[in-house]
Amino acid sequence: MKVMVGGTFDPLHDGHRQLLARSFDLAGQDGQVVIGLTTDTFAHRKVHPVRPFAIRKKELEAVLSSMGYQTPWAVEPLNDRFGSATESDFDAIVVSEETLPAAVEINRIRREAGRRKVDIHQISCVLAEDGRWISSTRIYRGEIDIHGHVLR
Amino acid sequence: MKVMVGGTFDPLHDGHRQLLARSFDLAGQDGQVVIGLTTDTFAHRKVHPVRPFAIRKKELEAVLSSMGYQTPWAVEPLNDRFGSATESDFDAIVVSEETLPAAVEINRIRREAGRRKVDIHQISCVLAEDGRWISSTRIYRGEIDIHGHVLR
Repeated sequence: MKVMVGGTFDPLHDGHRQLLARSFDLAGQDGQVVIGLTTDTFAHRKVHPVRPFAIRKKELEAVLSSMGYQTPWAVEPLNDRFGSATESDFDAIVVSEETLPAAVEINRIRREAGRRKVDIHQISCVLAEDGRWISSTRIYRGEIDIHGHVLR
Repeated sequence: MKVMVGGTFDPLHDGHRQLLARSFDLAGQDGQVVIGLTTDTFAHRKVHPVRPFAIRKKELEAVLSSMGYQTPWAVEPLNDRFGSATESDFDAIVVSEETLPAAVEINRIRREAGRRKVDIHQISCVLAEDGRWISSTRIYRGEIDIHGHVLR
């Protein structure tokens, strides 16, 4: 099936890897994965600095290539919470606990526009060593590394 | 992975088949699927009459066998909205649009009890010929058959 997923991926941590891996598992070999990458304008709402789109895209593409999936994939810019997900033809969206409400909203908008709803797959956040979520904000603050190891 | 899913399955329609098929796809050959089947006491909250547990279980098991999955599965009684999902060790729960809130609630209860949260997979309801949901209530009323064909 055709699967959509999105994020800022900066820095790209084990929670992101889980999100991407599940997207490819769901899509299957005959499917397709579209990864929405937040634009710099949209990503700047984050509480921590974010590296430029081109750099994040390069890192994301390197990780995707290294994962070794046969399924075709593409990265597209994400200008807002929904991107093309309210309009494009696809089967399922993969989200984290934080972005589940956006997926529910996407289905509401699709329904109102007469489009079919998509399936929603929410992965539970990956926990760091200390039992709290791995997040880019915590990594930026120097609390944990990208694998969730506690740094102080 | 180990997947849980639940329902009354009476009558067992194409929406249920989709829910079951997705559960097995997610679990994979090395996984396991546990299907919670509502007990008669719990199922009687429905707006339409429900056939006895033993009959529903037999029909469900026949459908599961006919689906031809290699993945081991088991049917267990479901006495309330949550069943064993708040306590047992599993990876993902598969729900419909109607039961997504129960899955979110299950994760809240698990978290409060110090258990790890599970992933949530919500399938969008299967539509009947008339563009509205296939549901047991509509089938009971004689509006559609179990495949969503309009009967009047």
